Amino acid sequence: MKELEERILKDGKCLPGGILKVDNFINHQMDSALMFSCSAEFMRLFADVKVDKILTVEASGIAPAVFAGYLMRVPVVFAKKAVPKTMDAAYVTTVHSFTKQRDYTVFVSKEYLREGERVLVIDDFLACGNASVGLAELCAQAGAKVVGFGFLVEKAFQGGREVIAKALPGVRVESLAAISSLDNGKVEFVP
Amino acid sequence: MKELEERILKDGKCLPGGILKVDNFINHQMDSALMFSCSAEFMRLFADVKVDKILTVEASGIAPAVFAGYLMRVPVVFAKKAVPKTMDAAYVTTVHSFTKQRDYTVFVSKEYLREGERVLVIDDFLACGNASVGLAELCAQAGAKVVGFGFLVEKAFQGGREVIAKALPGVRVESLAAISSLDNGKVEFVP
Repeated sequence: MKELEERILKDGKCLPGGILKVDNFINHQMDSALMFSCSAEFMRLFADVKVDKILTVEASGIAPAVFAGYLMRVPVVFAKKAVPKTMDAAYVTTVHSFTKQRDYTVFVSKEYLREGERVLVIDDFLACGNASVGLAELCAQAGAKVVGFGFLVEKAFQGGREVIAKALPGVRVESLAAISSLDNGKVEFVP
Repeated sequence: MKELEERILKDGKCLPGGILKVDNFINHQMDSALMFSCSAEFMRLFADVKVDKILTVEASGIAPAVFAGYLMRVPVVFAKKAVPKTMDAAYVTTVHSFTKQRDYTVFVSKEYLREGERVLVIDDFLACGNASVGLAELCAQAGAKVVGFGFLVEKAFQGGREVIAKALPGVRVESLAAISSLDNGKVEFVP
């Protein structure tokens, strides 16, 4: 998606260790108009897929997920990283964060993922694929079916697409900006 | 706001200790269409106020904040509860959570709150007012001015409005559903 790629080139910053800093417009300060455009693009890309629910994980996935939920007219659930006092029974799994170099646990209440539901997973980043496989694992626990993954930014050089393909063969993965390299402080997109 | 009050009566659950569980449509599973309507109402309520930026805190404030940012055409910043690897200098303060009965720290990068900016704070709940005063404290550190607070749900019996009035005299506080009591498992709204 040209608008997102151009914004990454303009405002994204390459940090050592394969990190792309986009906290100017995606994951700390957010450009809502851009998030809306991205979600409209998700709707276009998954127009032929029946979706009952959108699943994301707090916190940076929420903006693109709620706009997509608004446009696609389906409920949006965000997986939590800590169990709130008000949550009863939950599906739980553990995810390893590449950026933070640590494990964390994600939860979804059993009330909000149901057997047979067709779930579209939306998130800001696809890096190593661990968070995505974790969200898919929550769906599997519920007996729900992941029908697709939509990411704003894919760091293609970190192999997340292959990790997802291995865990969920045949499930569609779409990213709006796929980066082939962040070497030497320069963003290069997959042609 | 009638639509939100009716939804609280339909899907909200009163838990012991003055807790209103709304994770069916606000803070775990989200009804995007309702969040959009709520944000449109914020826009109407603050139509006469010049706003440069919306500030919220992860995670449940993000949905109403990004829709409000979209409608009001201003950037949205969410304060974080953990400092990410990619954040350089930050404004920091400590907040006491009533629901969780513990303190937590909130951060905003110095890049995304600036001197002189007029900030509208949006959040899902106003309870004791601690989170709101914490966000205002981050603005004060930056030399930014809080021009208003907008909440989806106000638990009026917990005194948050008075706490805000004491910390920031004269600043407008708007809530879309103000609850006077959750006693005996029954939601009652401020007339």
